[in-house]
Amino acid sequence: MSAEDRGRTARSILFKNIDVLTGDGGVLYNANVVVSGGVIAYVGTEMPESGGVIQRVVPGRGRVLMPGLVNAHTHVPMTAMRGYADDVPLSRWLSEFIFPVEDRLDARAARVCAEIAAAEMIRSGTVSFSDQYFFCDEIARTAAETGLKANISRGTVGGPDFDRATDARLRENVALYDQWNGYDGGRIRVDFAVHAEYTSVPAVWEAVADEANARGAGITFHLSETKGEQERCLEKYGETPTALFEKAGLLGPRTVAAHGVWCSPEDLAILARTGTSVCHCPCSNLKLGSGIAPVKRMLEAGINVCLGTDGAASNNSLDMFGEMKTAALLAKGAELDPTVLPAPTAAAMAAVNGARSQGRETCGLIREGYDADLILVNTRTASLTPNHEPYSTAVYAAVGKDVEMTMVNGRILYEQGDLKTLDWERVRAEFFAYAAPKLFRS
Amino acid sequence: MSAEDRGRTARSILFKNIDVLTGDGGVLYNANVVVSGGVIAYVGTEMPESGGVIQRVVPGRGRVLMPGLVNAHTHVPMTAMRGYADDVPLSRWLSEFIFPVEDRLDARAARVCAEIAAAEMIRSGTVSFSDQYFFCDEIARTAAETGLKANISRGTVGGPDFDRATDARLRENVALYDQWNGYDGGRIRVDFAVHAEYTSVPAVWEAVADEANARGAGITFHLSETKGEQERCLEKYGETPTALFEKAGLLGPRTVAAHGVWCSPEDLAILARTGTSVCHCPCSNLKLGSGIAPVKRMLEAGINVCLGTDGAASNNSLDMFGEMKTAALLAKGAELDPTVLPAPTAAAMAAVNGARSQGRETCGLIREGYDADLILVNTRTASLTPNHEPYSTAVYAAVGKDVEMTMVNGRILYEQGDLKTLDWERVRAEFFAYAAPKLFRS
Repeated sequence: MSAEDRGRTARSILFKNIDVLTGDGGVLYNANVVVSGGVIAYVGTEMPESGGVIQRVVPGRGRVLMPGLVNAHTHVPMTAMRGYADDVPLSRWLSEFIFPVEDRLDARAARVCAEIAAAEMIRSGTVSFSDQYFFCDEIARTAAETGLKANISRGTVGGPDFDRATDARLRENVALYDQWNGYDGGRIRVDFAVHAEYTSVPAVWEAVADEANARGAGITFHLSETKGEQERCLEKYGETPTALFEKAGLLGPRTVAAHGVWCSPEDLAILARTGTSVCHCPCSNLKLGSGIAPVKRMLEAGINVCLGTDGAASNNSLDMFGEMKTAALLAKGAELDPTVLPAPTAAAMAAVNGARSQGRETCGLIREGYDADLILVNTRTASLTPNHEPYSTAVYAAVGKDVEMTMVNGRILYEQGDLKTLDWERVRAEFFAYAAPKLFRS
Repeated sequence: MSAEDRGRTARSILFKNIDVLTGDGGVLYNANVVVSGGVIAYVGTEMPESGGVIQRVVPGRGRVLMPGLVNAHTHVPMTAMRGYADDVPLSRWLSEFIFPVEDRLDARAARVCAEIAAAEMIRSGTVSFSDQYFFCDEIARTAAETGLKANISRGTVGGPDFDRATDARLRENVALYDQWNGYDGGRIRVDFAVHAEYTSVPAVWEAVADEANARGAGITFHLSETKGEQERCLEKYGETPTALFEKAGLLGPRTVAAHGVWCSPEDLAILARTGTSVCHCPCSNLKLGSGIAPVKRMLEAGINVCLGTDGAASNNSLDMFGEMKTAALLAKGAELDPTVLPAPTAAAMAAVNGARSQGRETCGLIREGYDADLILVNTRTASLTPNHEPYSTAVYAAVGKDVEMTMVNGRILYEQGDLKTLDWERVRAEFFAYAAPKLFRS
């Protein structure tokens, strides 16, 4: 971190007379929040003790302060393919569109596409993301430079000839861990990843589990995303991916399973018992025709359910506000019950549950001592008037473009149209000058 | 219309070197579009003949021009209750929250709430809306003054003692028709409405059909929104609401049925055969736990399916971009097929199909001779980069806040943060000074 960055982090800011959505279902009206030294130093309706000099006062009237959002499953370089292959069958989507472009991807193109994603995420109130892809070093650099928090992993795949000692992907993940895990006080963490059951064999699962567990690192994988995947696994092994992954040592409180659309009730019981988080990606699951995940059952089972946008090729947005709304609405519609997945639950899924899935125990809530990962939403606009209840406003009415300020560890990454850590015009120019011709020449 | 308004309408504008989403699946890249006298005078890749003086040139690079959106089913005064009663069962939602507030509604409160809705709609690219509510005169005045197009109706309800000659609601609808239908060259139209089968009797249906058909006016109603509604109607009459309404003379090419979530395949065949439009409201249907409408079947049956947000109490947004995305995603997820409801179909549902449902035959497409109801979307932002395919960008990635300009009949109602026909600070102040204390005193 540069000296300038440290200076920013250490700045004390008072959000004054502001409505606070604490993230655990609580609301404080007309409260004061002090950020100091990168953490939340005070939250309450009194004026805080003057434990330090307040360097800036942000007037809170007509604003809601809420925890920054955590995109718990995405693939940031895939912004390259936003809108590139929509409305086509999944097999064609992969073989004709996604794979050929990925074959042409290089570090420079991956970097600029990660930067597009970072710009979009910061602008729309995301403070942290979990990413499983390749060119992970470029993803880590992008997080490092833009100020975002990130959990990054390299998905391991492999067939019968998989050798844990020499597998390039697994070695890459280990090297990534050695280089980046714990960067900037843990702002960047490195997880280990199995891509998915259907692209790997038990030796891969065990190797990934061993590498992660030896380090106390996080684990992630795609799980039971499609019906065919679940059925073919049952045919092949006589067990579900969830049951197989448990035996391989992949499940536990440091693990995040993405999707889980076709998990059986027994699978959900295993996930709950092992403390495994599930990252629900409703927009992607709908858009790819994968189906509707049993979120009500997941929550009833006591699973820590978080939210992710998945990549921009299957959403096509990285706006976590959209994901919150879709999650809350879809669960109600699928269950024919408007009381399912109420707004405070959706908000918790998008922040504190996501932070927990990343192993970040003091993130995702507005609470004294927690990291100052905060966003400010302007509710004085027509689309957010009236604001009867801040959770309803945030989940059902707001979009990412209602965010006025995004802060990570007390550092302001975005405010009022201004990205502080990224030169958007430079990123855009670089995409069209280098990445677009390289990836989409034809 | 004031002289100033006529001046604005008559202004000639050239959108130069712009990508045009025509609204019928077509795209013109780097084209020129001339608006003159309130209509689209030229669309093409040549420079237009100089048939008149161009008074303003709008540079099109990094922008997409698309047809303005039509919100084909809403209740604009219900913005008062945005976020007021979320996540509760439908019966409590109505009896404990919505009905008591509606009882306290008066003309002044209804007006300011309609203005909030107008501000939100104009800002997010909606050019026309269809509204069934009460205080219709205030809704009509709001449309008249803000420049929006609107089809407005007063929902008729009634039991065994219904008398068509004296019924206050039906007489109100007739008076509304006499006062407002055809205003400003047809910018405002008045339809007739049955609220719903379950709040009325056959005498109501026949009376509304007679009044509308005598005038060649449009007809609208809520249809088979919930499973209980469909089942109780079958129990009571031995027929579905659709079959009953057909016999009463309510169906036809001037009719819009809202929702249709629980329509049977036979119902859909009737709607298709009679040329009745269906207004799909996916967000509201999900949020109230009503279910998932069979949109794929509706489209396959040949029904003109349009889109609506429903009221802000059950969405809680009037952003038609959100409705397009939800419609397209939900149909794919429900059918487990990513090819269902492709982006160009969703875009057509949100514009030309909506215009058709309103009886506006020369609206909803970017085509010479059509009304200049246009919106400009800025695609240079991170969230819309890259823009591989304009329909995908509009449907899957854009939100209303990406709209830079909204134009109705050639008149600019919104541009770059500036609402031209509404003073938003005045509206907001009036809401908090008058409507909020009146409606939510407690």
